[in-house]
Amino acid sequence: MKLIADNLRITKLDIQNAFKEQDPKPVQDLVKRCVAKGTWAIDVNTGPLGKLPEEGMAFFIRAVESVTDLPLLIDTSNPVAMRAGLEAANNRAIINGFSLEPRKLKEILPLAREFDVDIVGFLLYPDSRVPRDAAQRFEITLSLFEKAAAAGVAKERIIIDPVVPPLAWEDGIVQARAVLHVIHTLPDLMGFDVQTIAGVSNLTTGAGDIVKKALVEQNYVAMLASAGLSYALLDILNEQVVAAARTADILSRESLFSWGMVP
Amino acid sequence: MKLIADNLRITKLDIQNAFKEQDPKPVQDLVKRCVAKGTWAIDVNTGPLGKLPEEGMAFFIRAVESVTDLPLLIDTSNPVAMRAGLEAANNRAIINGFSLEPRKLKEILPLAREFDVDIVGFLLYPDSRVPRDAAQRFEITLSLFEKAAAAGVAKERIIIDPVVPPLAWEDGIVQARAVLHVIHTLPDLMGFDVQTIAGVSNLTTGAGDIVKKALVEQNYVAMLASAGLSYALLDILNEQVVAAARTADILSRESLFSWGMVP
Repeated sequence: MKLIADNLRITKLDIQNAFKEQDPKPVQDLVKRCVAKGTWAIDVNTGPLGKLPEEGMAFFIRAVESVTDLPLLIDTSNPVAMRAGLEAANNRAIINGFSLEPRKLKEILPLAREFDVDIVGFLLYPDSRVPRDAAQRFEITLSLFEKAAAAGVAKERIIIDPVVPPLAWEDGIVQARAVLHVIHTLPDLMGFDVQTIAGVSNLTTGAGDIVKKALVEQNYVAMLASAGLSYALLDILNEQVVAAARTADILSRESLFSWGMVP
Repeated sequence: MKLIADNLRITKLDIQNAFKEQDPKPVQDLVKRCVAKGTWAIDVNTGPLGKLPEEGMAFFIRAVESVTDLPLLIDTSNPVAMRAGLEAANNRAIINGFSLEPRKLKEILPLAREFDVDIVGFLLYPDSRVPRDAAQRFEITLSLFEKAAAAGVAKERIIIDPVVPPLAWEDGIVQARAVLHVIHTLPDLMGFDVQTIAGVSNLTTGAGDIVKKALVEQNYVAMLASAGLSYALLDILNEQVVAAARTADILSRESLFSWGMVP
């Protein structure tokens, strides 16, 4: 299980201000801290980037690449910004991501073939509704792979994101269990080693108590690792959750163990 | 997932001394501490109890029952001590346990029927060797259920213990994964809701660093809960591991969630 920092988001005020003032330093400082914590990649969550998607995306890619050569997940729903990111990136890029939404199928999915990169596929309905159980998620997975094949994108390029629900939802736990089941079952269902990604902190969206949040996230990340998750998107600066993720990963790989491996 | 204290063991020096001096106080004090932490039951690990198994077992049962009416797991390999424990116990008793070892099949398994109690069944070969993979564990499970049926013990009475390995073993991680797989798969394989138990602290046997031990145990207990474990045998006084176990249990039950449930 590779860990990906979800820390760089335009919804954070200091990142928003850095963007407005075209000052790369706050972005660079944040990315440096994530790199120091051993993140495998940086999710660059720019949002749709409004009226200047190309210049906006180029600012973020330049700022991040000035301090790291780690892979970047380009995280925007705007196809114009996505293309700009893929063109600007010198580091390995991953598209984050597409879904059955018609515009994304038409304008984002083909970029995976054009730029020969991996692409995250969200298990959501075309209208962005969240499926209600594992069976619906399997159906959507099959549709995503069909659409990808039709667009000339190899199945090995797809990284399935089953969309971790907030526990605060009425049936949040049921959906969180369904996500684990889907991750565990997809390789058998599809007959190959399907790549999967999950956003761990989605689970605790809206929660107040940070001690409880960390406890819940560290347990769920262990379950995700045990289910065979490929990529965990998380707050790489949360030491408790990251230590749990790394330890769970050691326990989930059937390799030699030594106590020196435990963080 | 119910939590069972593994704290009362005759291998601990203070408990050994209490036994030698027939002083119930150290036993009572320890049990009170476990009860205060919300344990579901007490594992009474007396060992074989040498030359006076009946008096020895009676001492422990009396001492424990003087301070709690929680269920007791009677944890001895000596059939004479086991019978004495079942006769002495007023609290609900569970036999811990039997295996395919001929003496246990002959002298311990029938006690489950005679006393109408649940019994732990270890996934071990008749010579107490540990199986090497999940398939061997499934074969042993089938044999245990056959032997139980032949002894007139209902399958619902059997609590399967897949025997958590120390990670320090050469293939410890592989075996620890096999244990999770077995717990996850047994209900489907057997066609009913098989009860399972696992000793969490076995995993870290021999490890020195208590911070790393706790980190490993808290992750593994989350994986056990996620796999559907019925009973976790653990150090109920280890707050970090217990908080993880309780949180993992909340995340594993498909029930309503509220942040107030998280410890």
